[in-house]
Amino acid sequence: MSVTFAKGFTAAGVVAGISATAGKKDLALVVNNGPLKAGAGVFTTNRFCAAPVQWSRDVVKDGTVDAVILNSGGANACTGVEGYEQSVKTAETVGELLGCDAHDVAVCSTGLIGELLPLDNVLAGAREAYAALDDTVSSGEDASQAIMTTDTKPKTVTRLGSNGFRIGGMVKGSGMIAPQLATMLCVITTDAVVSAQQLQAALSAAVDTSFNRIDVDGCMSTNDTVILMASGASGIEPDPDEFNGIVANCCAALARQIIGDGEGSSHDIKITVNGATDEDAALACGRAVAASNLLKCAISGNDPNWGRIVSSLGTVPVDVAPYDPDQVTVDVNGVRVCDGGKPGHDRSEVDMTPREIDIVIDLNSGDATATVWTDDLTHEYVHINADYES
Amino acid sequence: MSVTFAKGFTAAGVVAGISATAGKKDLALVVNNGPLKAGAGVFTTNRFCAAPVQWSRDVVKDGTVDAVILNSGGANACTGVEGYEQSVKTAETVGELLGCDAHDVAVCSTGLIGELLPLDNVLAGAREAYAALDDTVSSGEDASQAIMTTDTKPKTVTRLGSNGFRIGGMVKGSGMIAPQLATMLCVITTDAVVSAQQLQAALSAAVDTSFNRIDVDGCMSTNDTVILMASGASGIEPDPDEFNGIVANCCAALARQIIGDGEGSSHDIKITVNGATDEDAALACGRAVAASNLLKCAISGNDPNWGRIVSSLGTVPVDVAPYDPDQVTVDVNGVRVCDGGKPGHDRSEVDMTPREIDIVIDLNSGDATATVWTDDLTHEYVHINADYES
Repeated sequence: MSVTFAKGFTAAGVVAGISATAGKKDLALVVNNGPLKAGAGVFTTNRFCAAPVQWSRDVVKDGTVDAVILNSGGANACTGVEGYEQSVKTAETVGELLGCDAHDVAVCSTGLIGELLPLDNVLAGAREAYAALDDTVSSGEDASQAIMTTDTKPKTVTRLGSNGFRIGGMVKGSGMIAPQLATMLCVITTDAVVSAQQLQAALSAAVDTSFNRIDVDGCMSTNDTVILMASGASGIEPDPDEFNGIVANCCAALARQIIGDGEGSSHDIKITVNGATDEDAALACGRAVAASNLLKCAISGNDPNWGRIVSSLGTVPVDVAPYDPDQVTVDVNGVRVCDGGKPGHDRSEVDMTPREIDIVIDLNSGDATATVWTDDLTHEYVHINADYES
Repeated sequence: MSVTFAKGFTAAGVVAGISATAGKKDLALVVNNGPLKAGAGVFTTNRFCAAPVQWSRDVVKDGTVDAVILNSGGANACTGVEGYEQSVKTAETVGELLGCDAHDVAVCSTGLIGELLPLDNVLAGAREAYAALDDTVSSGEDASQAIMTTDTKPKTVTRLGSNGFRIGGMVKGSGMIAPQLATMLCVITTDAVVSAQQLQAALSAAVDTSFNRIDVDGCMSTNDTVILMASGASGIEPDPDEFNGIVANCCAALARQIIGDGEGSSHDIKITVNGATDEDAALACGRAVAASNLLKCAISGNDPNWGRIVSSLGTVPVDVAPYDPDQVTVDVNGVRVCDGGKPGHDRSEVDMTPREIDIVIDLNSGDATATVWTDDLTHEYVHINADYES
């Protein structure tokens, strides 16, 4: 369903011959048919950001986005002036097909860094996708499949507002996932009547509590892009708070799906830090724990090794997160394995069979809380990333 | 040879029954027989530091260290008041045996976090080690074997000063190795006549450019301890600069051995950052690259994936390391794979057969330089840390 759930949007996903995997759908097009053409975006902060990111950051600036074209099979990152011209040429081609300004066409790429795209294939694919545009369930599904790389399944979301407006979205992301945007491409569409300014505010807030709080491997990408477009086709002006809440909910659901499909993962790890002096302190502690390779290996071996949790907590500077180590408790799947900085229940009491592992840390130093997500670190992650050129 | 190379020191390593591996040497004792009893130490900054670290930090404060007792098989970290009392009791026992103040006996532990030591075994082992103390080559070797955990080989160093004073050392460390002390226990001995103050200055500077610049898995330990003792038994007062240089050289050699024995590693990765505005900028860039799981996986697959190098560089904030991404070059084993932020030579030209992989990054923004070391990330690392309880 994904991006075609909201009225006013058409989409397509086609085999353009960009991906090294023969026959894989690798080019998606999502078009906003209006009447509103409002758009907003959030992008990677990586200083080596890819050509399509440089282009699309400019596209969203005026709040108008007519379409997004996305490809897997190549990141078009670290490709210099020639790479940037490929992104421009792609947007120009879509603009000509749709009869809109190229500067209202966002471009997203994902795949191997440091190689130019096969531009003829991209442009031919754009024309083919244009011809295939439709507002059906399957056209939305085709688009969500075309952006996959190491993803094992498409990731989509749909939500219905209380007075009938719709939001739908798709995301790709599996590895090179770190806070400050997980490595991903994401397109969210809505038929609500919402200004570009409100879209941007809703999206920035939503990303901050979703994609910025998941971490598969601590590696920040050069290509992260999240685009939110409103067509206004429902004619419904939503309550702003409800709208913001649903956008946040969509991003959280998509982020959760990324963790569920983290490269080679066998456990999804939810890390909640309670009792912090403020949210930043809670987040810093959660991220330190989520970044621990040793903990991630232990979880893959079904070992609720709380020593690796507290040793990660202990790396957070005291001025960032004031707490007393002797007051800290750690629960894993409901069993208090660390109590007041010392051993609690024996870790053999923890049931590690569920895919989702629930780690709750209480710093006992305040009232603030934050939750971050990560995956375990498995043989399969190493296999994928030793052998996959990305 | 290790700690018994310098005159005035005796050592022993015995099977005390602390380690889960039956018959493994797991308790070491290193004694300074003087005439000088000067000592200095550097410890983990982890806020969940282990009981022996809390004890030994106090021991070195007055500049006098008579002996160091070290055990593998248990970290005695996050063990509360009872754990602290175990460290005190251990030091008191050694003090009684040697006829010295317990407050001049440093204690080091390594192994699983969150469990008390089998204290009776530790104290019986201390007595046995005391009885076995000797200044022979083999007694030094016994000590270096007794501190091993996942290490596959003992790690030792010896150096001779120009006018005849001696320095020797031993270290353990293989996993939970991150900058700001790699996870390790290290004892260095010298027969030079050097004040405690000079020992501390030499050691702090040496650690900063050695153990603080290696990173196996980004995980900081609760137990890191480096102790440097001087017996003065040679009667030689060394040139201070030469002495500092040799201490730095010993620490660098031991740090290099840790990287060479990093858990499951198949490549040692040397990352040199040149052309930085200052050393801190160079270090920040080097550490960001060394921390990349994706790069470490690529290297284990013999792929000189420079996209994963620059995407890590790109996460360093501009105020920490000012540079222009379009001016950055990356050489892997002498082949310039990234030139001016764009593809250079094809990465197939890089010979990845050597164990040591030499990555040289030029930021082209200044004259400062720094080198950090890491290991690749392999199936074997995951295996060790999913199955080994540490």
